[in-house]
Amino acid sequence: MNSENFGLSEKLVSSSYIRQGSQARRSHEQLIRHLLEQGKCPEEGWSESTVELFLSELAVMDSNNFLGNCGVGEREGRVASSLVARRHYRLIHGIGRSGDIAAIQPKAAGSSLLNKLTNSVVLDILKLSGVRSVASCFVVPMATGMSLTLCFLTLRHRRPKARYIIWPRIDQKSCFKAMITVFFFTKNTKSHRNNLLEGDELRTDLEAVERQITELGAENILCVHSTTSCFAPRVPDRLEELASMCAKYDIPHIVNNAYGVQSSKCMHLIQQGARVGRIDAFVQSLDKNFMVPVGGAIIAGFDESFIEEISKMYPGRASASPSLDVLITLLSLGANGYKKLLSVRKEIYLLLAQELKSLASAHGERLLHTPHNPISLAMSLDGLQAESDKAVTQLGSMLFTRQVSGARVIPLDKEQTISGHTFRGFMSHSEAYPCPYLNAASAVGIAREDVTLCIKRLDKCLKTLKKEGNAAQSSPQVLLSGHEDTSQGVTEQK
Amino acid sequence: MNSENFGLSEKLVSSSYIRQGSQARRSHEQLIRHLLEQGKCPEEGWSESTVELFLSELAVMDSNNFLGNCGVGEREGRVASSLVARRHYRLIHGIGRSGDIAAIQPKAAGSSLLNKLTNSVVLDILKLSGVRSVASCFVVPMATGMSLTLCFLTLRHRRPKARYIIWPRIDQKSCFKAMITVFFFTKNTKSHRNNLLEGDELRTDLEAVERQITELGAENILCVHSTTSCFAPRVPDRLEELASMCAKYDIPHIVNNAYGVQSSKCMHLIQQGARVGRIDAFVQSLDKNFMVPVGGAIIAGFDESFIEEISKMYPGRASASPSLDVLITLLSLGANGYKKLLSVRKEIYLLLAQELKSLASAHGERLLHTPHNPISLAMSLDGLQAESDKAVTQLGSMLFTRQVSGARVIPLDKEQTISGHTFRGFMSHSEAYPCPYLNAASAVGIAREDVTLCIKRLDKCLKTLKKEGNAAQSSPQVLLSGHEDTSQGVTEQK
Amino acid sequence: MNSENFGLSEKLVSSSYIRQGSQARRSHEQLIRHLLEQGKCPEEGWSESTVELFLSELAVMDSNNFLGNCGVGEREGRVASSLVARRHYRLIHGIGRSGDIAAIQPKAAGSSLLNKLTNSVVLDILKLSGVRSVASCFVVPMATGMSLTLCFLTLRHRRPKARYIIWPRIDQKSCFKAMITVFFFTKNTKSHRNNLLEGDELRTDLEAVERQITELGAENILCVHSTTSCFAPRVPDRLEELASMCAKYDIPHIVNNAYGVQSSKCMHLIQQGARVGRIDAFVQSLDKNFMVPVGGAIIAGFDESFIEEISKMYPGRASASPSLDVLITLLSLGANGYKKLLSVRKEIYLLLAQELKSLASAHGERLLHTPHNPISLAMSLDGLQAESDKAVTQLGSMLFTRQVSGARVIPLDKEQTISGHTFRGFMSHSEAYPCPYLNAASAVGIAREDVTLCIKRLDKCLKTLKKEGNAAQSSPQVLLSGHEDTSQGVTEQK
Amino acid sequence: MNSENFGLSEKLVSSSYIRQGSQARRSHEQLIRHLLEQGKCPEEGWSESTVELFLSELAVMDSNNFLGNCGVGEREGRVASSLVARRHYRLIHGIGRSGDIAAIQPKAAGSSLLNKLTNSVVLDILKLSGVRSVASCFVVPMATGMSLTLCFLTLRHRRPKARYIIWPRIDQKSCFKAMITVFFFTKNTKSHRNNLLEGDELRTDLEAVERQITELGAENILCVHSTTSCFAPRVPDRLEELASMCAKYDIPHIVNNAYGVQSSKCMHLIQQGARVGRIDAFVQSLDKNFMVPVGGAIIAGFDESFIEEISKMYPGRASASPSLDVLITLLSLGANGYKKLLSVRKEIYLLLAQELKSLASAHGERLLHTPHNPISLAMSLDGLQAESDKAVTQLGSMLFTRQVSGARVIPLDKEQTISGHTFRGFMSHSEAYPCPYLNAASAVGIAREDVTLCIKRLDKCLKTLKKEGNAAQSSPQVLLSGHEDTSQGVTEQK
Repeated sequence: MNSENFGLSEKLVSSSYIRQGSQARRSHEQLIRHLLEQGKCPEEGWSESTVELFLSELAVMDSNNFLGNCGVGEREGRVASSLVARRHYRLIHGIGRSGDIAAIQPKAAGSSLLNKLTNSVVLDILKLSGVRSVASCFVVPMATGMSLTLCFLTLRHRRPKARYIIWPRIDQKSCFKAMITVFFFTKNTKSHRNNLLEGDELRTDLEAVERQITELGAENILCVHSTTSCFAPRVPDRLEELASMCAKYDIPHIVNNAYGVQSSKCMHLIQQGARVGRIDAFVQSLDKNFMVPVGGAIIAGFDESFIEEISKMYPGRASASPSLDVLITLLSLGANGYKKLLSVRKEIYLLLAQELKSLASAHGERLLHTPHNPISLAMSLDGLQAESDKAVTQLGSMLFTRQVSGARVIPLDKEQTISGHTFRGFMSHSEAYPCPYLNAASAVGIAREDVTLCIKRLDKCLKTLKKEGNAAQSSPQVLLSGHEDTSQGVTEQK
Repeated sequence: MNSENFGLSEKLVSSSYIRQGSQARRSHEQLIRHLLEQGKCPEEGWSESTVELFLSELAVMDSNNFLGNCGVGEREGRVASSLVARRHYRLIHGIGRSGDIAAIQPKAAGSSLLNKLTNSVVLDILKLSGVRSVASCFVVPMATGMSLTLCFLTLRHRRPKARYIIWPRIDQKSCFKAMITVFFFTKNTKSHRNNLLEGDELRTDLEAVERQITELGAENILCVHSTTSCFAPRVPDRLEELASMCAKYDIPHIVNNAYGVQSSKCMHLIQQGARVGRIDAFVQSLDKNFMVPVGGAIIAGFDESFIEEISKMYPGRASASPSLDVLITLLSLGANGYKKLLSVRKEIYLLLAQELKSLASAHGERLLHTPHNPISLAMSLDGLQAESDKAVTQLGSMLFTRQVSGARVIPLDKEQTISGHTFRGFMSHSEAYPCPYLNAASAVGIAREDVTLCIKRLDKCLKTLKKEGNAAQSSPQVLLSGHEDTSQGVTEQK
Repeated sequence: MNSENFGLSEKLVSSSYIRQGSQARRSHEQLIRHLLEQGKCPEEGWSESTVELFLSELAVMDSNNFLGNCGVGEREGRVASSLVARRHYRLIHGIGRSGDIAAIQPKAAGSSLLNKLTNSVVLDILKLSGVRSVASCFVVPMATGMSLTLCFLTLRHRRPKARYIIWPRIDQKSCFKAMITVFFFTKNTKSHRNNLLEGDELRTDLEAVERQITELGAENILCVHSTTSCFAPRVPDRLEELASMCAKYDIPHIVNNAYGVQSSKCMHLIQQGARVGRIDAFVQSLDKNFMVPVGGAIIAGFDESFIEEISKMYPGRASASPSLDVLITLLSLGANGYKKLLSVRKEIYLLLAQELKSLASAHGERLLHTPHNPISLAMSLDGLQAESDKAVTQLGSMLFTRQVSGARVIPLDKEQTISGHTFRGFMSHSEAYPCPYLNAASAVGIAREDVTLCIKRLDKCLKTLKKEGNAAQSSPQVLLSGHEDTSQGVTEQK
Repeated sequence: MNSENFGLSEKLVSSSYIRQGSQARRSHEQLIRHLLEQGKCPEEGWSESTVELFLSELAVMDSNNFLGNCGVGEREGRVASSLVARRHYRLIHGIGRSGDIAAIQPKAAGSSLLNKLTNSVVLDILKLSGVRSVASCFVVPMATGMSLTLCFLTLRHRRPKARYIIWPRIDQKSCFKAMITVFFFTKNTKSHRNNLLEGDELRTDLEAVERQITELGAENILCVHSTTSCFAPRVPDRLEELASMCAKYDIPHIVNNAYGVQSSKCMHLIQQGARVGRIDAFVQSLDKNFMVPVGGAIIAGFDESFIEEISKMYPGRASASPSLDVLITLLSLGANGYKKLLSVRKEIYLLLAQELKSLASAHGERLLHTPHNPISLAMSLDGLQAESDKAVTQLGSMLFTRQVSGARVIPLDKEQTISGHTFRGFMSHSEAYPCPYLNAASAVGIAREDVTLCIKRLDKCLKTLKKEGNAAQSSPQVLLSGHEDTSQGVTEQK
């Protein structure tokens, strides 16, 4: 309420109480002021009531909520269902304008403010998470893959002659399709060999990359497309070296940082890469890093004008839903709350590693040694494989049925064709990884209980399979009914 | 509750009442059954309680809501903010899978069902709205422009050599950018002349189109990109003829049907075009046709496999938010409710035409005669232009300030450069339309009060400007402060 | 947002848009100002967004929502469940203080304001509905019966010697218990005869009332307890005459106006009664008159100090929930919306009367002639009674099973004992009403469809019973399974 | 969804996923089954989604939500505002029936179930909290005071001749008014002396009570009305001895256990009292014990039939809102969650005691020694009193202004008249307590931060007052502006 209304209230309720109420309101306003002034994620999270007060203030500024508005256009932010209006806090106009997803909308000052502030708060969090020199970013209501596509499309305008993307292999469909959609041949799809096996780890084969660059000619290469977060035993690409190479050959460099914001190591790699060499943009998923629903990503970079160019490439308005989700989440958590989540994740990573190690040794397997992967772990399944041919895939089904989600089982020698390109050893980022294995990850939001339950259920499954295996040697095969798709949909990345 | 729980309840509350309660539950279940069985929009709208019951049933089926789930993956549908979880009805996993936005997610049976049903219900509505032979469609969480881009990208895989899109001029930025993003030259950007002036109307110049096709060579043309809904005096393209031409020359045909679902005329054009010739896909905005928030579109077509190809082109998962909005809305309205909205729109179109006509004649202007445009109307501003140079643009500002939204003013001779291409006479779909004018539209959800208020305020503005004009002739120019952008953001289309 | 924050926003989003947003905010503030200033129900209903904005402003003023509050008391408005906090808009402190349910709470300026405004708005509506000279009222979170009890308890302090309440018979349990709870003998429970049969109507036996007064001695009488809204063929009491009598004998007069606010006739009776004689308080249900959940009532009167006395009799704080419900409802409807509801109710009353009349004559029954009852109607069931002994009660069960709610069937000669007092002819307000009958009412919120469906189902039931009756004469009785309680809970009033 | 609908879903989404979804649904159903079967608070709290699923299932069973219902009664559960419907989960019919607040409603099987289950779950919690032999209880939508009134009114029917209530003094208005409302003289209001000073504590003067009983005659006494939770230095009444006395003299015994459920000591006293003597009913506040909004209470006792008698005394239906709040809260917390809250409260009580002790000694005051009071503490203000006459009351104002809520300051010699009865030394439960003091309490839901902040602010205030006091001795008095009511509304109890 404004001061006039507080004044009137004093006639109804004792003025000292009203004055205290008005002062209480000011403390919410102060938080909002701070946000508007600094454009940063608040240190301490806001209460739900401040968040909702703020959102209702924004909504009031959009023309569809004007009390005296009359609309004779074709897009007036009218909503047929009050359930729908309510769930969007009556912010209906989306974000952006035809020309630019970051543009201000005359009809929707509140939504425009929401958009600006979200991008600003997210930029702050990227800095806090380790990429201190990031210059600009924006939230886009598309998942990581489509966001990478947008980056590639933008680069095409800059490098019309380029025909290739250099891509250290990473076995995630959307990642590969992001390139295919743009209609380029990715050189590496021919070789499939440029991940080096170092100990248990699969790491970037820098020599192979440089060889490809010189073979194809730098001017024919749209960009290098590297990856940070990934499933073990693959580890994050050697970003520093790749970035230096890109600088040397004047080739753009796009980093798929899908769920890397949650890991200081991944963020550090990007920061270092940009410092010593060239990174044009890095793209990360909203849902995987910020615990919001699927469907948004952040496109970020070190050169404001290039990021603006990408934002102008998106033709038309867009859903404000992912922006709204991440803004609510970050205001509610505050920077401290988010940091707390990240440090818990790190702790649980150590717990998971330790528990998997014990479990592995109890079952005659071992935890693969992948120190460069800060999120994902892998446990060998050699013994299980030896047990029976089907056991490895059965393990996947069994875990699915027992509500262990996210654990994925990688058998040997899987072959997969995507848009005409065949990958041998698919899912393992390598044509012939030495052993089958099981992945588990400690991602943001994980709880200790997830680890305990997973280990317990995994233990049971392994014991059951061993018994069945023994039985199977002397008797007919016992087949598990039910779910047959061992991959559980986790081989992919949005 | 299941029958066991109803049974237990009978021990607490008299069994005849519980049995009636259980029967009442069945009537909600019957509605859901009907939906699952038929995949059609229900005739009568559902109550909010059925809608919410249904959504909570879907949510329960997603793994992030499993009571005993343990998650050790990198994407587990965890949500940090309960505000966010709640507003999405705890449906967190989005839609689709890496390979295909229409694919089923193992982790999210409920969200998968939501996705399937939404597409199916939307398909039903497209049929009801006039495109009876539509074969397939899907909702995509991108606005119309980006959705068109996706269609063009898909066509590129089919026609790798094609370099041109034939596009009867329509002055909407996102529309043009949708093509630019894909990196094609659009032949017509050279000429800007292929809209024919017929009376007051601007219509497709069929001869020019055919000439371009033969000049460029059909095999070099990616597609014809036509438009239905548009601002008067531009009228919907001659779809029948264009479709026939596409069939004749074997050129794909993509229709931008942005807000055309709400008009039986636009839908009829598409239906006829597909019957007599070739239409590969038609794209429409969710928000403009279904009164939901900005950010979604429907890609539809007559060949299931081509539509599937487009859906597979989207690399990765996507936000379920637009699907959820449109499903809630259509279940709430029911087919009858939606038809009712459309028939009210049509009535108000007639009212608006009549009122504008009277107003125009009172001010010495005239309502342009554009019978082929079923949604948008235009009133000449010749007199105002004569009054003073600035008057036309001032009118735009004044309407904005007076909360008349969606009315847009088109001055003469505006020039605009988009991505390096210059449009003369921008906003008027023509290099030299004979007069400046004002647009107003009757779009779905409009109320009689919108018309009344708009006419009243417009009348006042025109009177004020006339007075000022008279004053200006004898005294120094009075300048209006405030908003200067006359276009009010309405020249564009998302 | 305050002006400082709007100022800061102008740095992020173009200032003309922000200024328009800020102006839009002012229009909500204006509505709130008007409410605070006038304390009246707004003419036009508020939008949901204004209502929620206002409630969140109120909540911000309560100490449990202060951002810097620390609480070391035993009642701090803490809430364990966010579902609960949310559904009460974080208004947790209830209303009133130990001494007075209308008192202001130092810890809760917002809730206090809510309480004051609700009472003020409700007072306005009572005036608009016909009791123009009402002086004061308050909402109490108790149903009508308990609210009447509170009035009687208050009167006892004024008339410590009084031992009797004069009560023209009305067969509603809670009504009777409201008196029993206070532990008085109600004189009429001895006679049960003071409703006069005039035509079909049962009306106040004024002579009997006066006789009782003189017999018992005015000083021994706590009050006359009369009733307006009631089931036909009982009609509202002759309030004018009763009020005059009360004035003459100096006896307090409490009116049970349970669902009378919705009827201009009932309200007129009260207004007239107060004008010509004495009415100390009149009590009405919130849910029955204002379409809110069960559990609140309004105690109103013509002497502010007496109403205050009652409010001070309530020992302690109370739930704000009914106040919140009725405030939201009245702000949303506006005075015009409420009047509209009332006029629709009246129309449907006529429709119901007409339809029942036709139906009755088709089945050889008749609509009882009860012109003084503006809400409830009764149709004779003589023929049905003749058919078979059980038919009348079976009709009740059948209607219940067919989801006709609120229709109640009154058999002959039902006897009921309440707290030791036996009523002959219970439910019919009379020891021996000439015929059994069925009641139906047109209450606020009723829709035409309710009438149509009810008549259709009633017709079917009557036909079925007739067939069964015929069958029963020649064969063994067919018993209906299921619900046996014919009263359907509608004999009572909260 | 029922099995048929799950079956249909399998045609749309792979059956193994649907089956898992259906299994997930069953786990929610299992929780509900357990609740229905046992009627106990679940050990572990339910997730929000289970709670909401359950509530929506209940709502579906109420006739106002029947899809085919037609209503022709005067109370049909219609709701005008969707905001209101939603916030009550569409449970509109309230609880109870005319005859009995615990009765089942034919129109509302869901609400009836809600009512039964709430009472059952609450009973379970009372047992867990220490009153193991409690036999019956019900939630009533009235605060503690009015609920006590209802108990007294019920007793009047049993003891029509009784004219007195024996009441060991406790200075809380609503408590006293609860008796006055029923219109009894409370014997002790004459003497005001029956609290004994034992050390710093004020305890029940058992001899005085017994003397009064014999003087007045047991048959003239309605009941003994004792108290557990109270402000220090008053401590809980000696329930065991009072209960024995009541048994001996055959006098009913009602215990005001306002916020005693949260303290095992208070609950133990009641359990012991009932074991060795007589307790007819004990009444507790919902909000103070269960962190829900103000406005509900629990009436409980050891004899099912007496509790039923009280519930039948409430004339009419009642609001379901308090029942709904406490049910949501207890299902969400689970028994373990609630126990956790209680144990945290106990810990913080110790912290508060320790911190107040240190603070007191730093300011030359002392923490009063009141070991029998498990919730409330008191710190002397002798020094402050010596400083200046106004200082004690000023401290109250200052704490209010600094958002320390719940801390109350008790000056010496305050006199207050309530309903004609004058209390000397009001607020201190005694005519002449030796010193002024400040109260602070550790109530359920308190956080460590509350204590820290309170101590810090209190320290500052005391320092400021000391300085002012010193200044005042040599210069004119500095007056604090603002709030003057030192009691801050905390002298009372709802």
